[in-house]
Amino acid sequence: MTVRNLFLLPGDGIGPEAMGEVRKIIAYMNEAKNAGFVTDEGLVGGSAYDAHGAAISDADMAKAMAADAVLFGAVGGPKWDSVPYEVRPEAGLLRLRKDLQLFANLRPAICYPALASASSLKPELVDGLDILIIRELTGGVYFGEPKEIIDLGNGQKRGIDTQVYDTYEIERIAGVAFELARTRNNRVCSMEKRNVMKSGVLWNQVVTATHKEKYSDVQLEHMLADAGGMQLVRQPKQFDVIVTDNLFGDMLSDVAAMLTGSLGMLPSASLGAPDAKTGKRKALYEPVHGSAPDIAGKGIANPIAMIASFAMCLRYSFGLVTEADALEKAIANVLDSGIRTGDIMSPGSRQVGTTEMGDAILAEF
Amino acid sequence: MTVRNLFLLPGDGIGPEAMGEVRKIIAYMNEAKNAGFVTDEGLVGGSAYDAHGAAISDADMAKAMAADAVLFGAVGGPKWDSVPYEVRPEAGLLRLRKDLQLFANLRPAICYPALASASSLKPELVDGLDILIIRELTGGVYFGEPKEIIDLGNGQKRGIDTQVYDTYEIERIAGVAFELARTRNNRVCSMEKRNVMKSGVLWNQVVTATHKEKYSDVQLEHMLADAGGMQLVRQPKQFDVIVTDNLFGDMLSDVAAMLTGSLGMLPSASLGAPDAKTGKRKALYEPVHGSAPDIAGKGIANPIAMIASFAMCLRYSFGLVTEADALEKAIANVLDSGIRTGDIMSPGSRQVGTTEMGDAILAEF
Ligand SMILES: CC(C)[C@H](C(=O)O)[C@@H](O)C(=O)O
Ligand SMILES: CC(C)[C@H](C(=O)O)[C@@H](O)C(=O)O
Repeated sequence: MTVRNLFLLPGDGIGPEAMGEVRKIIAYMNEAKNAGFVTDEGLVGGSAYDAHGAAISDADMAKAMAADAVLFGAVGGPKWDSVPYEVRPEAGLLRLRKDLQLFANLRPAICYPALASASSLKPELVDGLDILIIRELTGGVYFGEPKEIIDLGNGQKRGIDTQVYDTYEIERIAGVAFELARTRNNRVCSMEKRNVMKSGVLWNQVVTATHKEKYSDVQLEHMLADAGGMQLVRQPKQFDVIVTDNLFGDMLSDVAAMLTGSLGMLPSASLGAPDAKTGKRKALYEPVHGSAPDIAGKGIANPIAMIASFAMCLRYSFGLVTEADALEKAIANVLDSGIRTGDIMSPGSRQVGTTEMGDAILAEF
Repeated sequence: MTVRNLFLLPGDGIGPEAMGEVRKIIAYMNEAKNAGFVTDEGLVGGSAYDAHGAAISDADMAKAMAADAVLFGAVGGPKWDSVPYEVRPEAGLLRLRKDLQLFANLRPAICYPALASASSLKPELVDGLDILIIRELTGGVYFGEPKEIIDLGNGQKRGIDTQVYDTYEIERIAGVAFELARTRNNRVCSMEKRNVMKSGVLWNQVVTATHKEKYSDVQLEHMLADAGGMQLVRQPKQFDVIVTDNLFGDMLSDVAAMLTGSLGMLPSASLGAPDAKTGKRKALYEPVHGSAPDIAGKGIANPIAMIASFAMCLRYSFGLVTEADALEKAIANVLDSGIRTGDIMSPGSRQVGTTEMGDAILAEF
């Protein structure tokens, strides 16, 4: 029987509640479909800091490295706002991304038709929206050195971060974008600030060269990242796949997520390179939303983003495409039926809590 | 009689057409109000490159340094897309900002009531919107060194940019934000990525300390820049003054500008520190929009952003507050009367060209 190893890192805030609903789906797939999921669980973020004094322990890192896929909830909260920089909750997530070499972050920004009116944009601009943002996740200003605060004396300090991109890093993320565009509408828009940044100049050159060499069947466009942010707000449906660097990707994918009106619903996948022998990719799946400490523990959090992240896991880590499609369809059906958590509540809908939402999706699955 | 020296840099694309309408207003103020404006004019961007092989000549830089204020149109266009990095059109603007030490970029994002329906956001979210974004303009990743592309051999290159902020740079921009907040709704939101960037950690600390020391009467909030982008889209009216670094400011002010539906209408001011002796600040005023090469030379460009930039010049460089108010009111009145350039045309309005729009505003002034 196939064994599929999942490592669960629920994290802080609403992470554990959301993860609970995925656990139900995993149990169901094991029982009803013999899916062979074996799960283990660890701590990350503030909860890991409380237990181990680190944002993730070495033991849990080793388990994450060994698993077929990692499911990640959310990290952070006011409780840990003043812990030292090196052990802040986010450091756990950043270490996972870096050590597992998860260079490709896939962030779909889709607008569920049932929720088009929840967007702050006019419904006709977002209804049916389906963008895939491919964000480079292991390079750029997030990890470049030097990264430090220097004391200059006289009460003056200097904060330094370094944006670095090498040709191979740009090539491989561009490759992911072009490959995925071929499975969609065959269009890629690459965003950088080549008019100001040398890394942007290189980014632009390498994406252009990669396109010319291997993917000239895909339609490629370049846009300055600031103009890209504007265009996302002005006319988001003009985009199919967007490829951009770590920091621009952070900003632009959040803006895109908010456009959909479905922030609590958006999943993401972070993938490594295929292993030379086995072809397997290391992978981590996490909701785009944060830990929402204000509503944690109340049983009202929306588990959809976490469940949709598990659907991406089925698709990208295990090739269970039918199951992934079915799970995504189950989410859409439940929304169509008018069942809502508080964050997406609208007049005439029925408001439910976290577990009822999970149950409803499982019943549809 | 007062002499007020203005240096005009119309630049490329629609820059010269838009500047033409400001020239009419200057002439009128000289004649009717004895304003004493003395103007000189230079080249910047692609047009400077064509004439001198540089994005701005040293002679024109000297004139910009000597003037009381610089009025800047726009730079760039496909004609100069492949000129060398050092002499690309944007280099002229960046040199002006750096050499004049214009560290404080003021970008109001206001929504003209007559245009609320032109926003891609729901009208109730933007109607009456009035945000002031204060962007640091002479530091950060725009100017930090090293900034280069290194050849690593083996077909590999490395693109490097450096984000650097010193305490004094953060202090002075925070001071501008707090001062201006006091003339508005007394609220400042500071945005950075302290969870990922050391410069963000320092930014956060210095803004907090500056607030505590000198501006504790102003309400201060901190937000991560990615969350800030989201909140701008979700509920823009929650903000009064936003203060942020050069790169985040570039992105966030463009998103904010687009929200208003009034992109072609938004002005900006870039200010230096007050001179120790005279109290005068160096200053440059420019529209937020670009050079729009596709419509250049057709007489259809919207001159409002350029005219509104001149209103900021009256206010900030010359203390002509009554005149600035009157010019801004004239713009609003013309819009209320249903006169529109093509970019903001709506059913039932009357479409006019660049000069007619300028004339209409002048007639109302
Ligand atoms: C939590 C934080 C470190 C992270 C990031 O900046 O990448 C988050 O904003 C994200 O987008 O996943
Ligand atoms: C033209 C370009 C260099 C500039 C910038 O990035 O600052 C522009 O986008 C702006 O916002 O003024």
